[in-house]
Amino acid sequence: MKPLANDTFLRALRREPTPYTPIWLMRQAGRYLPEYKATRSRAGSFMALCTSPELACEVTLQPLERFPLDAAILFSDILTIPDAMGLGLRFTEGEGPRFERPLRDEADIAKLAAPDPGGELRYVTDAVRTIRRALDGRVPLIGFSGSPWTLACYMVEGGGSSDFRQIKTMLYRRPDLLERILAVNAEAVAAYLNAQVEAGAQAIMIFDSWGGVLADGAFQRFSLAYTRRVLEALRTQAGDGVPTIVFTKGGGLWLEQIADTGCDAVGIDWTVDPGQARARIGARCAIQGNLDPMALMAEPEQVGAEARRVLDRFGAPGEGSGHVFNLGHGISQFTPPENVSALVEAVHRYSRELRSRA
Amino acid sequence: MKPLANDTFLRALRREPTPYTPIWLMRQAGRYLPEYKATRSRAGSFMALCTSPELACEVTLQPLERFPLDAAILFSDILTIPDAMGLGLRFTEGEGPRFERPLRDEADIAKLAAPDPGGELRYVTDAVRTIRRALDGRVPLIGFSGSPWTLACYMVEGGGSSDFRQIKTMLYRRPDLLERILAVNAEAVAAYLNAQVEAGAQAIMIFDSWGGVLADGAFQRFSLAYTRRVLEALRTQAGDGVPTIVFTKGGGLWLEQIADTGCDAVGIDWTVDPGQARARIGARCAIQGNLDPMALMAEPEQVGAEARRVLDRFGAPGEGSGHVFNLGHGISQFTPPENVSALVEAVHRYSRELRSRA
Repeated sequence: MKPLANDTFLRALRREPTPYTPIWLMRQAGRYLPEYKATRSRAGSFMALCTSPELACEVTLQPLERFPLDAAILFSDILTIPDAMGLGLRFTEGEGPRFERPLRDEADIAKLAAPDPGGELRYVTDAVRTIRRALDGRVPLIGFSGSPWTLACYMVEGGGSSDFRQIKTMLYRRPDLLERILAVNAEAVAAYLNAQVEAGAQAIMIFDSWGGVLADGAFQRFSLAYTRRVLEALRTQAGDGVPTIVFTKGGGLWLEQIADTGCDAVGIDWTVDPGQARARIGARCAIQGNLDPMALMAEPEQVGAEARRVLDRFGAPGEGSGHVFNLGHGISQFTPPENVSALVEAVHRYSRELRSRA
Repeated sequence: MKPLANDTFLRALRREPTPYTPIWLMRQAGRYLPEYKATRSRAGSFMALCTSPELACEVTLQPLERFPLDAAILFSDILTIPDAMGLGLRFTEGEGPRFERPLRDEADIAKLAAPDPGGELRYVTDAVRTIRRALDGRVPLIGFSGSPWTLACYMVEGGGSSDFRQIKTMLYRRPDLLERILAVNAEAVAAYLNAQVEAGAQAIMIFDSWGGVLADGAFQRFSLAYTRRVLEALRTQAGDGVPTIVFTKGGGLWLEQIADTGCDAVGIDWTVDPGQARARIGARCAIQGNLDPMALMAEPEQVGAEARRVLDRFGAPGEGSGHVFNLGHGISQFTPPENVSALVEAVHRYSRELRSRA
């Protein structure tokens, strides 16, 4: 493998000095790009796209062809693990993902087991290897998984939810059952992420997309504790030394506790004041975020102004400031691609300017 | 009018000592009660229920017949104001509220005007008067409105939204248009709430249900500033001396700033640690909250345990501790009514016990 031509992202995660603030975007390979829609259409279905290493590689690289982004992220779905557990993932038009066999029954929960990443999930590590080869050292490749709690939400609800009634009923009524699911999920996520690292992932991100729906107290017990288990398993196995990012959407009240898990970077959404986040987290972790994805609906010059505002609020980018620019959530399918150009350019240009002033 | 037989709620809002922690529940008159469904069915439609002072009074009192709650809240809809502005409110089965004429056009926004609470909204103040008479001094009556920002979300989106793309596009692209809507909404909400006070409302709650979707910075400019205008108008008019509660769902990062608006109480959702909220807000304001509504899906004894945990985390209920027990969001339609009994009993009993220990 070639050495990395651009390691700005990895250096920022390690809080080492960087000449500018690196940027990548959650869901950067996605429906806002016409070329993504073309590949998706050729694949026939979303899962066909995910399970083909060649097509997954193709869409992973598409945003890098358009924009000088500082990292690539494996194109895959957040629900590959529960699918491999046998819950029967289906994507229905306009409705999002659904599981045919959601986990409600005590006997089903007792039988739940972590899938072998070398078995049914082999297409994911194959994709990682294919993408690493295709990247040829341009930028680092991020591997990822949903957090044990976030996976459990889909597994118990059977799909998206507005009130999380099924899983919260289990949480408040039968916490023992939920903890059994979470323990299996933590084991599965750890094995899955270690396998991604072995296949070539150079950083790992854990998406705790639904941590923010939990009550204080419940978050620590049912989400954070199991994310911590995953991180510990990474540190003692293949993932040792590979930087990790933990992002809890709606988790702004718990940043210190997230930082204490031993992750290298904490993702923040747009509700968080970046300066305050920096003050609360201190030098423990890098910070990733946090532009509102809807800011990309404005005119290109307004997008640039919003990007500069985020950079200003992160504070002086002295050595080790460790900021990775990102959105506070996945990019919207309605985003004009030219606004992504404006964003990446503004972040690169203005962050260089801030450093030259410092 | 008779003096209040139970003013515990008002005293807690004023941070005066109370013999126990008062409790009421957001959406306490609602679909989890079979008697509500019966009245709703008799009314024919949801808006027919809202616009009939007699039926609105009937459902407002229903939860008080079942449970020893410490406050009543006007039964009404959050969208009465934009409906009176001519946006054409419709409730479609399973879809929630929709406006036939959402606000997208600059000319429509220029024409927008605050409705006279004595005109088309007269049914609301009539309901307040009817309910006050029927309550006959049992417990205080809370009047309410959506915040200017929250109303604007529905007015621009045309209904509920998962990404708030329409209103955020306006926010980032044409903030001047949004500010015009918010200025009119603030004027309308202030007039509406002052009229509710004149008709007999004894406390006022402002529901900033969608404040939490805003970016830090945008929240202060587009939500909080206009809530502050409403509070100022209340203080200088009929609302002077009537306690106010401001609740921003998802606003846990901004509690100090919400407290600084001059409201009497800050509502918190279940993501907030009550002890931290108390420490951050200090003696400025009472605090209302914050049980996860889904905790009511457990067994009655588990509900009691969760209620005690919330009370414990609020800390020692010394004089002026000013806690009003509530959920962190509206009660779910799937709640077993017997669990509400268990909750109210646990809050009353355990908070008395805590005081006797102190």
